Amino acid sequence: MARSQRNTAPLRHPDVAELDLLDILHALSDRTRMAIVQRLWEEPERVCGTFPVDVAPSTLSHHFRVLREAGLILQRDEGIRRWSSLRHHDLEARFPGLVGHIVDTFKHQ
Amino acid sequence: MARSQRNTAPLRHPDVAELDLLDILHALSDRTRMAIVQRLWEEPERVCGTFPVDVAPSTLSHHFRVLREAGLILQRDEGIRRWSSLRHHDLEARFPGLVGHIVDTFKHQ
Repeated sequence: MARSQRNTAPLRHPDVAELDLLDILHALSDRTRMAIVQRLWEEPERVCGTFPVDVAPSTLSHHFRVLREAGLILQRDEGIRRWSSLRHHDLEARFPGLVGHIVDTFKHQ
Repeated sequence: MARSQRNTAPLRHPDVAELDLLDILHALSDRTRMAIVQRLWEEPERVCGTFPVDVAPSTLSHHFRVLREAGLILQRDEGIRRWSSLRHHDLEARFPGLVGHIVDTFKHQ
């Protein structure tokens, strides 16, 4: 995504009180999105284009938006790069232990 | 669904080894399906038309199929009635504690 496009659309992040379990489950029910969350579970922050997933850039943008709008990830722009991180603290505050349980289950299934 | 229609399409239930976490999460990411699972979490078995959900019969049939094909519920026909129950044992064997954690989180969110 070009930097100029980014600047016209501010990144929406739901408040912790707005987080909805059904949105979280939907966001995690896709293999690509689960792979992104798994990677972010283990790393504090990562540049969007560097995740080990094999999908078109437009598809990847869609997946990041679903994750962000569900409240799973935080995204911030720095120059031409968009960084993503997991909202560990907010997720723990709202749904104690749940995302970790799901990520761990996926890893071992 | 008419009895004659039912008899032409046998009910498919995935084996426990086939259960996939992403299918389970997708099945649980809908409000109506979550309401069905919550009710079955507390009752051993229930007739399909008696769940406290407000959707059209065809929509309800779709939701039950999603739950059954994901491996969350077992369905059996008895005369003109279709009974549903949760696959507690299989879900515990495959994803220990997970569905209970999700159902409990939804109840308290």
